[in-house]
Amino acid sequence: MIDKLIEKIQKLHAPVVVGLDPDLAFIPDFIQRRAFSQYGETPEGAAQAIWTFNKAIIDAVCDLVPAVKPQSAMYEQFGISGEIIFDRTIRYCHEKGLIVIGDVKRGDIGNTSAAYARGHLGPVQIGTSQFNGFDEDFVTVNPYMGSDSVLPFTETAEKSGKGIFVLVKTSNPSSADFQDRLVDGRPLFELVADKVNEWGSGSIGQYGFSEVGAVVGATWPKQAARARELMPHTFFLVPGYGAQGATAQDLKPNFNEDGLGAIVNSSRGIIAAYKKEKYAKYGEQNFADASRAAVLDMIEDINSVL
Amino acid sequence: MIDKLIEKIQKLHAPVVVGLDPDLAFIPDFIQRRAFSQYGETPEGAAQAIWTFNKAIIDAVCDLVPAVKPQSAMYEQFGISGEIIFDRTIRYCHEKGLIVIGDVKRGDIGNTSAAYARGHLGPVQIGTSQFNGFDEDFVTVNPYMGSDSVLPFTETAEKSGKGIFVLVKTSNPSSADFQDRLVDGRPLFELVADKVNEWGSGSIGQYGFSEVGAVVGATWPKQAARARELMPHTFFLVPGYGAQGATAQDLKPNFNEDGLGAIVNSSRGIIAAYKKEKYAKYGEQNFADASRAAVLDMIEDINSVL
Repeated sequence: MIDKLIEKIQKLHAPVVVGLDPDLAFIPDFIQRRAFSQYGETPEGAAQAIWTFNKAIIDAVCDLVPAVKPQSAMYEQFGISGEIIFDRTIRYCHEKGLIVIGDVKRGDIGNTSAAYARGHLGPVQIGTSQFNGFDEDFVTVNPYMGSDSVLPFTETAEKSGKGIFVLVKTSNPSSADFQDRLVDGRPLFELVADKVNEWGSGSIGQYGFSEVGAVVGATWPKQAARARELMPHTFFLVPGYGAQGATAQDLKPNFNEDGLGAIVNSSRGIIAAYKKEKYAKYGEQNFADASRAAVLDMIEDINSVL
Repeated sequence: MIDKLIEKIQKLHAPVVVGLDPDLAFIPDFIQRRAFSQYGETPEGAAQAIWTFNKAIIDAVCDLVPAVKPQSAMYEQFGISGEIIFDRTIRYCHEKGLIVIGDVKRGDIGNTSAAYARGHLGPVQIGTSQFNGFDEDFVTVNPYMGSDSVLPFTETAEKSGKGIFVLVKTSNPSSADFQDRLVDGRPLFELVADKVNEWGSGSIGQYGFSEVGAVVGATWPKQAARARELMPHTFFLVPGYGAQGATAQDLKPNFNEDGLGAIVNSSRGIIAAYKKEKYAKYGEQNFADASRAAVLDMIEDINSVL
């Protein structure tokens, strides 16, 4: 799946992923009102609003970007109603030819990680039949529990022709609490980076990158440079651009000199673009056009430093 | 919620939680066959089998134990059909008076962790109304991303009168990969333990324990003793007993001298007890009676060392 992602990035000249994190606060009032009038102020109503919102944004950006990244939490918060829309969003993105990175940050002891892996990278065996639960192409994985919590994901990914991104150095301020603490003189995230190399060593594709990617925040350019050095065969999923404060210049260390090696996420900056002064001219009704414009600007911004 | 948990443990003399991890391999053939004949070999069929299985076990053990711990992955693997049963299981356990520990091991950047927290410890605001998504009493939280990824859980828990258990030293073999690495001469899990103290310092209840508990594996008695020392106000959720190899003797360091301070999980050892030679006499048809017998034995075994 990493080869497919790289080919799409190259074809579109767009190392960009749109984060589908549909907080209700980002969804235009008119959409919420319409959904609530039909389903009430209920989880079903919220889910309907999210679906209308997501679909319009997907339609508006699907020819511009290789991938989307739905954030599990934003759906899970509405219980079953939210999960139904998480699932529908994934399926619709596939119909539109988008690669789907499920931002689920799962990880558990071996047999439990295996169940998560089946659930998101499929398939699951039921009697003599096989099914996909949530059918993403990549998922994010939390490494705190160590190798035997990550390997069930790499094994399932390999069988299904899919991939993962392991949290290495996350974009949030408190990532320093543990990830930057020194072990034998090296920050913990570097030890995780070494493991990512190891976990991915058996799945290096034709462009030199493995199916085991790394999440490396754009908000830490110095650490990103080090991570890039330590993981030459690892593709980076880079959060933190835009709303979290990182600029295009900050992103440079995440990429190789040839401009490959990373894909940059923006969630709020794209899906809630209509709320920003820069895109206010589109108006709330045309929020998806604002998102499209924001994607085009983001692609141009990032390409300007590569 | 920690006070309520402690009171239930004391009333029942049972520091035991039953892990509801319904792998299909644990579910008796006759239940699977019946579910598949009604719904086919489909996710709906698997979910129906899980529900029948869970309900029988809950009915059989609900007067013996204070709490259950459904493992999200085992439901998530069947997509929406599985999530529906995860939700139904939680609701049914509440009807039966059980405390529910959602083993979800979530954690993300601030606003995303807040959405997970709302989704599992509720409520979520929809227009002028409030709803609970998945309505657990506690959830497990992964600390790799640091304070700002955990605090949204403690804040939501406080508002909802609920609690969390933070992964400190997990039961799996590879937990040594990162959790045991030395930072300034101390294993990483001890740094996490210090943070758990800090995160829980504002929520210490009438029995001296905070709403921020810790997951400390029974498979590492030495580390458990150290964790117990470092976190005097922290209640431990202890996995690893039974199927993962830890014995009652191994559990002792997780408890205080007064026998308080921890609750021990068993999943497979209880729910799949009918498959063990010791409980084979019950037969597959009476799997829930075997589970009840296994719970009684586990309670006796643990109390024998306290």
